[in-house]
Amino acid sequence: MTAPVPADVISRLKAVLGDGGWSQDSDRVGPKLVEWRGRWTGQTPLLALPRTTAEVAAVVGLCAESGTAITPQGGNTGLVSGQIPQGEILLSTERLNAIRDIDGFDDVIVAEAGVTLAGVHEAAAKIDRRFPLGLASEGSATVGGVISTNAGGTQVLRYGSTRNLVLGVEAVLPNGEIWNGLKRLRKDNTGYDLKQLLIGAEGTLGVITAASLKLFPVLASRATAFVGLTSPREAIRLLARAKAETGGAVEAFELMGRLGVAFALKNIPGLREPLEAVHPWYALIETQSGEPGAAEAAMERLLAHALDDGLILDAAIAQTEAQAKAFWAVRENQSGGQKPEGAAWKHDVSVPVSRVADFIEQASAAVLKIDPSLRIVAFGHVGDGNIHYDVLRADGGSDQAHNEARDAGSRIVHDIVAAMDGSISAEHGLGAAKTGDALRYKSPVEVEALRAIRAALDPKRIMNPRVLF
Amino acid sequence: MTAPVPADVISRLKAVLGDGGWSQDSDRVGPKLVEWRGRWTGQTPLLALPRTTAEVAAVVGLCAESGTAITPQGGNTGLVSGQIPQGEILLSTERLNAIRDIDGFDDVIVAEAGVTLAGVHEAAAKIDRRFPLGLASEGSATVGGVISTNAGGTQVLRYGSTRNLVLGVEAVLPNGEIWNGLKRLRKDNTGYDLKQLLIGAEGTLGVITAASLKLFPVLASRATAFVGLTSPREAIRLLARAKAETGGAVEAFELMGRLGVAFALKNIPGLREPLEAVHPWYALIETQSGEPGAAEAAMERLLAHALDDGLILDAAIAQTEAQAKAFWAVRENQSGGQKPEGAAWKHDVSVPVSRVADFIEQASAAVLKIDPSLRIVAFGHVGDGNIHYDVLRADGGSDQAHNEARDAGSRIVHDIVAAMDGSISAEHGLGAAKTGDALRYKSPVEVEALRAIRAALDPKRIMNPRVLF
Repeated sequence: MTAPVPADVISRLKAVLGDGGWSQDSDRVGPKLVEWRGRWTGQTPLLALPRTTAEVAAVVGLCAESGTAITPQGGNTGLVSGQIPQGEILLSTERLNAIRDIDGFDDVIVAEAGVTLAGVHEAAAKIDRRFPLGLASEGSATVGGVISTNAGGTQVLRYGSTRNLVLGVEAVLPNGEIWNGLKRLRKDNTGYDLKQLLIGAEGTLGVITAASLKLFPVLASRATAFVGLTSPREAIRLLARAKAETGGAVEAFELMGRLGVAFALKNIPGLREPLEAVHPWYALIETQSGEPGAAEAAMERLLAHALDDGLILDAAIAQTEAQAKAFWAVRENQSGGQKPEGAAWKHDVSVPVSRVADFIEQASAAVLKIDPSLRIVAFGHVGDGNIHYDVLRADGGSDQAHNEARDAGSRIVHDIVAAMDGSISAEHGLGAAKTGDALRYKSPVEVEALRAIRAALDPKRIMNPRVLF
Repeated sequence: MTAPVPADVISRLKAVLGDGGWSQDSDRVGPKLVEWRGRWTGQTPLLALPRTTAEVAAVVGLCAESGTAITPQGGNTGLVSGQIPQGEILLSTERLNAIRDIDGFDDVIVAEAGVTLAGVHEAAAKIDRRFPLGLASEGSATVGGVISTNAGGTQVLRYGSTRNLVLGVEAVLPNGEIWNGLKRLRKDNTGYDLKQLLIGAEGTLGVITAASLKLFPVLASRATAFVGLTSPREAIRLLARAKAETGGAVEAFELMGRLGVAFALKNIPGLREPLEAVHPWYALIETQSGEPGAAEAAMERLLAHALDDGLILDAAIAQTEAQAKAFWAVRENQSGGQKPEGAAWKHDVSVPVSRVADFIEQASAAVLKIDPSLRIVAFGHVGDGNIHYDVLRADGGSDQAHNEARDAGSRIVHDIVAAMDGSISAEHGLGAAKTGDALRYKSPVEVEALRAIRAALDPKRIMNPRVLF
């Protein structure tokens, strides 16, 4: 818990922000203090609602001077408690919501931190362009948030994480100064790339106030397929083949186990069994190409070849946009579908792509050794080696007991990840929730360097102080 | 000039490196002290030739303890004097030359710092993969060097700069500790991404000793075209159309003015006029696709449409590999071809793609106002907004006088770049040569932050001390 903020600092912040620029009203502030799944709740002496970069700078400057801690918050969709204040000033970017520019010539959009990802998609579509970052939470997740957490999603295989989509950043640094790094250059080699440090810094090195983001052409052809498989081992073989055979046309390659599919079908209204027969594992594959017909041709060739070789058990290529959406709905409800089934230990891990099958096998063996009735829902972006590995309590078991066993269980899973040179947070970040875990697995040499950088830029440690290391 | 290194430090370094691990022989050391164009020469009390990461750590550790400065050097192909020591210990990575691993499943190669770019290409080709970083100097340029300078090249449009091709880095930090960041993960969100800071740091934050690099599939179809144009304005319109119409299949889009083409044809044996008629400007365009025939189809469609609309004057699509190579030879000799023509002010700038034509127009007007007989050779990666803008002395003029006028002339060019929110070093870096220029154009807020980061990681400023700010 952060130390109480002196009353005079609160008064000065209110004065700087002006009417409508702050709130202490629990109806207004309350929703921002609860993590959306209800796993964490927080508190704050003041919700700051700056409307301009200059107002953000005034707030941060005042906090820097007085040593007052700040938690920045975007759309409040984070999964690791990085955005929930515990006594800090809560700085919401919701009123920084202008799209400052969009340009189909430079293929760039300049959006303020509080613009939602859906807002960016919509603006891009209007000029026949695309911003290829797709998240289930895109209606709420904001530009500032996805950059601060280097968000992933389903199109990383082709376009990379958020880091690869950012051309420039405007931010207020921890000393309250505005850094205008809002360039729209494709190349700029003039010293350390400061924006790379801010991307994924989870608000600890400043407040991102705006960004210039890369746009891409809308591709002419697309094919979406649902495939039945024996095991993750065949899935990664199919992936390797897909990458080589389609020459970079694979946009998404998502893995799902039967249990997660079954939970989605059972608990989410309107979903349909994607293939005629039931299979132990599934992959959802999407190809896109700039050449009309090429994505479909590549997909058909790939799947025919894989069926001939016995690498896959069955496959269906979506014939309509509605069918493609239905396939994606099964994938997107892997998380929502398991929710009614009770408490879960959730893991967002990555390993080298070649080790995905080994990881799932080893982790599952270790988890079932704890209790053979635990239920494993493994799914995710296998194309990036990123598996969401969720362990649900036994059918009819106790949520509380399962939650109490979480830390020990997760340790076992994370140890297996670490032994494969993997990451215990592939795309969600560390927040306040995974700090201890990160310290266990990161080398002291690296942690020391990262702490030195943080101290150099934020000597009073006012920016999101409980987050990261 | 760096302070003399005490004799006892030299002795201890020799002891640490052992026989064959160092040199003071001028025949051995000499070539590493001269920039390859002969523009800068340096000196060093000792050439360190470590063979292992542990030996690099021992050298850096000893230097850190004694406050001795180090200049790291890869293939000595840098263009901004970042690799030429002026009294520092010269640490060459040439004996760190192992390819530690290559894996077509994970699409990764793990190479030590001293492996050449050509060596990486060769190893990748053996497993039917591709490392899409192409430089004229690839026979000498090394993995450590291209990462330390975030090298660009001709395939950035599609694959990004070196930064986008690096999965992990092993480095010796300025305190002499080894950081093993050699992961091969596609996603890892566990705090600041330290490797992003080392990429492009020009050796000031440590010595990169090895890296894991992304490999890509070899694409099934490719088309290379040479196009005649009226002006850079049509070139960027064609580029925008190419990106939208071919849906990301454009791999290279290079611009050349007639003068540079004429110099290449005149001064480089074996080159041939690329199109029947002479045109004021040219573009070299390459498309690639994973779908057989798609690259050719996309190119034909694009050029037919552009000819119909009068956007281009003429075009030829290479019918053979030899013809494609001949087109590329014209482009690759834009620099070599102008060399016999005398002294030049060279600029490696970038602007937003939409401003490329404005930049060339404004810069040329300003340069010709200085002296209407100056000769302008403008070429480069227009797809990235990166123009190599070279100003040659008047035909028959004095090299010395032109060299003496360089700083004032370059200031005029760089001021125009800065007014367009561009970069004065798009892909070559700052080295020791452009430090002052960078300070003129970067915001003090940013420079202060970058200096704080450097001081935090290298408090004694031993790593390449004259480089960057």
